Amino acid sequence: MFMPFTYKHDVQIEFGPGKTKDIAESVKAENAGKAMLVIDKDLRKLHIADEICAALTENNIAYCIFDDFTPNPSVLSVDSCAKQIRAEHCEIIIAIGGGSSMDVGKGAAVIATNEGGIMDYMYLRKDNAKVPEHPLLPVIAVPTTSGTGSEVSECIVLIDTDNIKDVMYSSILLPKYAYVDPELTYKMPASICANTGLDVLGHALEAYIATLENIMADLFAKEAIKLTFQYLPKAVSGDKEARIYMALASMYAGIAQSKNGCVLPHAVSCPLSASYGVPHGLGVGVAQIPNIEYTRDVCAEQYKQILDYIDPLAHEVPADEAADGLIEKIKTLFTAVGVDMKLDIGAVDKAVITKMSREALLEIDIEGSPRQPVTQEDVEAFYYKMLKL
Amino acid sequence: MFMPFTYKHDVQIEFGPGKTKDIAESVKAENAGKAMLVIDKDLRKLHIADEICAALTENNIAYCIFDDFTPNPSVLSVDSCAKQIRAEHCEIIIAIGGGSSMDVGKGAAVIATNEGGIMDYMYLRKDNAKVPEHPLLPVIAVPTTSGTGSEVSECIVLIDTDNIKDVMYSSILLPKYAYVDPELTYKMPASICANTGLDVLGHALEAYIATLENIMADLFAKEAIKLTFQYLPKAVSGDKEARIYMALASMYAGIAQSKNGCVLPHAVSCPLSASYGVPHGLGVGVAQIPNIEYTRDVCAEQYKQILDYIDPLAHEVPADEAADGLIEKIKTLFTAVGVDMKLDIGAVDKAVITKMSREALLEIDIEGSPRQPVTQEDVEAFYYKMLKL
Repeated sequence: MFMPFTYKHDVQIEFGPGKTKDIAESVKAENAGKAMLVIDKDLRKLHIADEICAALTENNIAYCIFDDFTPNPSVLSVDSCAKQIRAEHCEIIIAIGGGSSMDVGKGAAVIATNEGGIMDYMYLRKDNAKVPEHPLLPVIAVPTTSGTGSEVSECIVLIDTDNIKDVMYSSILLPKYAYVDPELTYKMPASICANTGLDVLGHALEAYIATLENIMADLFAKEAIKLTFQYLPKAVSGDKEARIYMALASMYAGIAQSKNGCVLPHAVSCPLSASYGVPHGLGVGVAQIPNIEYTRDVCAEQYKQILDYIDPLAHEVPADEAADGLIEKIKTLFTAVGVDMKLDIGAVDKAVITKMSREALLEIDIEGSPRQPVTQEDVEAFYYKMLKL
Repeated sequence: MFMPFTYKHDVQIEFGPGKTKDIAESVKAENAGKAMLVIDKDLRKLHIADEICAALTENNIAYCIFDDFTPNPSVLSVDSCAKQIRAEHCEIIIAIGGGSSMDVGKGAAVIATNEGGIMDYMYLRKDNAKVPEHPLLPVIAVPTTSGTGSEVSECIVLIDTDNIKDVMYSSILLPKYAYVDPELTYKMPASICANTGLDVLGHALEAYIATLENIMADLFAKEAIKLTFQYLPKAVSGDKEARIYMALASMYAGIAQSKNGCVLPHAVSCPLSASYGVPHGLGVGVAQIPNIEYTRDVCAEQYKQILDYIDPLAHEVPADEAADGLIEKIKTLFTAVGVDMKLDIGAVDKAVITKMSREALLEIDIEGSPRQPVTQEDVEAFYYKMLKL
């Protein structure tokens, strides 16, 4: 049974080393006046945006900077950024960084021209969620890690005022431009390269099995998985060519997850980030094997397709053993990138596991799981597998 | 060396059996009044558009029909269609058919709102070519064959008043909507299914080796090649599932050729269509093996990548033998779909070959060839290989 699909992805992708030198051209193409640069403090210290700022100045484009937010940013940071955008009369947003910067920038594009705060528009408001009435400010997204794919995605992830990681999904959130310049990732430390790379793997593996089906997104997902296995270990070692291909894989996986959504690993990683500061990609990465085990019976065929795509020698592996083959490859990948298969968040008792599981069950990614219903016990089992206890 | 690229493809793809039932929704989304249906006479006789017309009527959308054109349509047909669009005050174009209908519709969208005739805007006008000043009418493209990929491409191909096949390339030619409904291809005769399927193969193989490089387009190209080898023989036999996948392959190949361009097979097939009525896909298909032989030294690596992608057993084939592997597969495919490897256009003497070669050398596809310079002798050699003499 072939699943009909709609595919629309109106973002201009500018990909390649050195591409950010051309950002001013896109600002001019939008006839925008002042720009708001959204960039976190650490990246500013590393002078990651210096060339972009110089190019803007050279082209007589005025700009100001918003950097008042943290990793796993809050809805309040978005509202505060939007307030500054209005006060400074900015007409375009340039969001430079990992998922945090891009999600703050994309969220601020909503609130800069629409009423209320960003939390009013998000998933957990359910039937009360507002819908933006006015066109958003244009966003130029500039990733400096290879992980979230937020530069090409139609969603944002923020921590709400109840300390729950919530999302907003809408095609209007898609940035107008994605400048993916792998040079910006060359200085990324090995550990961030590894953690964000596991996020790429998660987006792609999860999108491929999610109940939303879009065969074009699946093609990007498979290619992202293949590229990640091929290039992530070298990228972690600092190899520049490998970092280029990881930037590509991240973008492909971003398209895939944006179209098909994610599943349980993204849900269970949310409370870990919100309450224990676990890097998003790391939490997602460690949940991959538990998720393959959880879905292996309902997704045997998909795991076979993935394994065939990434490994020409695997074509004789029977469908019901493909999940094992994939699990072995993930274990080898973790070893190669120096990441432990278990998370250490300190001593946690059953009450903590129960609370995190309850929170994870609120996440939108639960809906997309191909194995249903997802029970409290199912989610708890994920945490027992993922955590050093 | 990684080649930077730009990727922007702002078309809404609606893909799947039965999708055309929803066309009225897109007309309404565009706030368009009267629609112009561009559809050829043969398809009208087959009642291919009856359901679409019924859906328009049901939604109180007025429409008129333009069907005054032939396969390999001329620039004059486009101008005449545009004239009728203006006279009837149509605000949207629905082009239903193979490449001919879609190219007439896309071309008429230019002339309906811009000065002059379509020929003024085309490639062979070179530096004198006009550039459209006004926004085009929106186009909904509805393919009924799986070949040209015109529903997702940024080009049109028309025969000019000198009987030369000319093109116009511009991102503004991209249809606003592509309704790819494989059900419309179920009635397609086997021979048309085979010929158009070979066009898919040509777009994808040629785009993959063309000098314009876009790694996202290459991904679509590889997948289109794989799908064609897998599904074309069954599609020719009338298998519905195979026809769905050939519709997908055609769309992927259309994206690939639109981004990367085509090479010599498209150039040499143009005079064959223009002067001898050879079906476009057939001429393109028969030129594939001569083109692989022509480029095998400069594109050995690409042919290896293609072979690896479509055949898991091929990973041990050395790069310099991959071209042979691919040639063998193409020969097998021709046999499976019942197409002769040589074209019979009757008796032709050297003067005819010389004239066709001179015309082929004018085509834009010559520019994209990875082997340069392309000489008159090179092109003549293609014809000697392709034709029953």
